[in-house]
Amino acid sequence: MVVASPKRPVAKIKFLKTPTSQAWVAQAIANIDTILLDHAQCERKAAGTAIQMMSRYPSSTELVRELTAIAQEELSHYDQVNNWLEQRGIPLQPVSPPPYGASLKKCVRRQEPDRMLDLLLVSALIEARSHERLGLLGEHCQDPQLAKFYRSLMASEARHYGSYWLLATTYFDINLVNERLEELAEQESEILSTLYPEPRVHS
Amino acid sequence: MVVASPKRPVAKIKFLKTPTSQAWVAQAIANIDTILLDHAQCERKAAGTAIQMMSRYPSSTELVRELTAIAQEELSHYDQVNNWLEQRGIPLQPVSPPPYGASLKKCVRRQEPDRMLDLLLVSALIEARSHERLGLLGEHCQDPQLAKFYRSLMASEARHYGSYWLLATTYFDINLVNERLEELAEQESEILSTLYPEPRVHS
Repeated sequence: MVVASPKRPVAKIKFLKTPTSQAWVAQAIANIDTILLDHAQCERKAAGTAIQMMSRYPSSTELVRELTAIAQEELSHYDQVNNWLEQRGIPLQPVSPPPYGASLKKCVRRQEPDRMLDLLLVSALIEARSHERLGLLGEHCQDPQLAKFYRSLMASEARHYGSYWLLATTYFDINLVNERLEELAEQESEILSTLYPEPRVHS
Repeated sequence: MVVASPKRPVAKIKFLKTPTSQAWVAQAIANIDTILLDHAQCERKAAGTAIQMMSRYPSSTELVRELTAIAQEELSHYDQVNNWLEQRGIPLQPVSPPPYGASLKKCVRRQEPDRMLDLLLVSALIEARSHERLGLLGEHCQDPQLAKFYRSLMASEARHYGSYWLLATTYFDINLVNERLEELAEQESEILSTLYPEPRVHS
């Protein structure tokens, strides 16, 4: 699904068009406490988004059942990140979100059933990018225990992006899914092509 | 905290001003499949409300940590109710909500910190009423396994209403909390004083 372009490096993670830059890694590692605060918010938002989708499509049994499991896992991760914040003596506090989420939301078409497809694929892309970036934190973070924690989250994130994609193929033709995924993945990489000045999971 | 009035029966559940009528029990037991569908929605909404509160008060550590646990439990109940629906061959589907939630929402004052206090106490009251009504279903439901399931949920619901009240006393003076709880509990009983014609958990 990932098509290599001679002009840019190939993304390692399925679905993603371009890999995260070393500049993001450097920014994140230098500001790991802020990243933890932002990461907690990402997990809470991911749980909220899954619940919103269940609420929007209450008759879609597979979606409801699968997203319940995902929301439960996101809340468990949220709790674990908050434990890390507590352990490091960082008071819980909000950090301003980067434009990533809002920009992706703008790509969601408003008419059904396009909306459902786009919501599933945007969530798949966010999970894929989170998977990639938590993996980079797991590789580069200087605190070995925290690095281990990031690596422990990676399996779930990978499962989540697979689940969102599978749900899309449950309700839509696979060719349509993959075609739209290509378009949205282009947008996702475009949104991240300029590093946001503040350290965030999705800078 | 519950003050008996000579004109009306005394509520058995702490916080509630008046007990649920036999008319509600009869309506619910005669329409148990619809009650299950509505109950699933209530659990999902309770999880969503808890996440919204964490999002609104991200620096309130005790609130964030406690509501994470509550949201996780609500999602687990949601999943269990959906299992019951599946087991009974009832397709997942939305049912229109009764006016209960929207009416209680109107009682929430808009200015902080009043808003936070009211949100916590409205949630406490909804949990208390759910506890009472699931208990009635556990007592009267004709399917012994389903009755047992309802009874199994009661302990969590009781813990939840206690948690919301405790959180209120964490952030507000206990006298202020109990004074406002009295006012909101009056409203809650008033809202339920006319049985909603459709069978719902909060008819």
